[in-house]
Amino acid sequence: MTLCLQGTLTLSKVVRKLIDILENYLPFFSKLTTDEKNKLVSASHISLCEKGKALRNKREDCLGFVIVKKGRLRVYMSSDEGREITLYRLLEGDMCLFSASCAMSNIQFDVMLESEVESEVVIISPCVYKELMDTSLPVAKYTGELLSSKLSEVMWLMDQVLNKRVDVRLASLLIEESDLRESEILPLTQEQLANHLGTAREVVTRILKGFQADGIVSVKRGTVEITDRNALYGISAH
Amino acid sequence: MTLCLQGTLTLSKVVRKLIDILENYLPFFSKLTTDEKNKLVSASHISLCEKGKALRNKREDCLGFVIVKKGRLRVYMSSDEGREITLYRLLEGDMCLFSASCAMSNIQFDVMLESEVESEVVIISPCVYKELMDTSLPVAKYTGELLSSKLSEVMWLMDQVLNKRVDVRLASLLIEESDLRESEILPLTQEQLANHLGTAREVVTRILKGFQADGIVSVKRGTVEITDRNALYGISAH
Repeated sequence: MTLCLQGTLTLSKVVRKLIDILENYLPFFSKLTTDEKNKLVSASHISLCEKGKALRNKREDCLGFVIVKKGRLRVYMSSDEGREITLYRLLEGDMCLFSASCAMSNIQFDVMLESEVESEVVIISPCVYKELMDTSLPVAKYTGELLSSKLSEVMWLMDQVLNKRVDVRLASLLIEESDLRESEILPLTQEQLANHLGTAREVVTRILKGFQADGIVSVKRGTVEITDRNALYGISAH
Repeated sequence: MTLCLQGTLTLSKVVRKLIDILENYLPFFSKLTTDEKNKLVSASHISLCEKGKALRNKREDCLGFVIVKKGRLRVYMSSDEGREITLYRLLEGDMCLFSASCAMSNIQFDVMLESEVESEVVIISPCVYKELMDTSLPVAKYTGELLSSKLSEVMWLMDQVLNKRVDVRLASLLIEESDLRESEILPLTQEQLANHLGTAREVVTRILKGFQADGIVSVKRGTVEITDRNALYGISAH
């Protein structure tokens, strides 16, 4: 996107919005030189993603750095056999580095991104961000901090996977989903729940049956309704 | 390069060795100013660790950044219940950031370090390294690249844990151990093997029994001997 749109002298509404987003969500933006700011703005664009859209698939090209302006993205890993596990969610203001792994040295893994609800994102060109990372201390520091925080989330997940029973993790997931959606009725299939947890559908089915027998949830085709939130909290605290 | 250390005209042998190590293993060292170099050297020291020494335990203070000069360190995670999993090994020239988590923003997990063989390491004070990270672009970039590479290792491990059968992972581990030790006889207990893999000892015992029945390994108290390396390769490739 160029700053001078079709001969106009004033910034178009879209560019102004873009600058607002970058200013708001990138703590280093105010520390950049005017030239660097222009470069970053020119290399960014706003994109709308309908619910369920895959922003990045395994073998796709290097998408770029993604900032969430509105909505919610799921970042997940997928095995060769198609088994998934949710690594974390990106909410408003969050940024994804791994959608631009081509621009990041030493990143040798693939993560996938999909919008869980209708979302508005800013995509920054990988080359320009990389150039800034290589030349600007504030950008390099911010990127390092973001990497540390993502590494912490992945280590937390690894600890959960290794040391928590799946029923405990499923209880936590149902509470988290209910908080995100602000509803006790979750439009999630057992397959989707299994994909969040990195486990098999049969395992989820078996645990949900137990929860239902205890009056904690009510399972219907394609939805799970939480009927005893306190009991679910109790299990998740194990 | 001249380093002026207060009052002395010649550098002591120890300091010369320290500078050699930092120059050799920190790609950013040559890009630092003389002042920054002096600061880094003054804040570092060489330490010898006998085999099996815990360099960092869970609740210990912030040790500092660790560079391996000689030997081998194991970086692992431990659950509240004492179950362990090996995250990766640090070999000659490798550096550990997480032994100085106090100096790293957003690192909210604990890893432990132990020397698997007699090792010689350089420990850099967390405060001084943090200061350099905050003010020097080469240091910030190097740290970001190291974080990315460690994140890649952890993601690889997560993929293994989620998607590989434990017998396949045990076969890979035995080959890796044999390569590291340059020997077919591995002085490892079944408990230690379980701690590498993040699984229970009983699981390792069961799989080793199967391997032994197939003539692939010979298990004695406290050691595992590889007797059919090709068969082990075959399993690890699954």
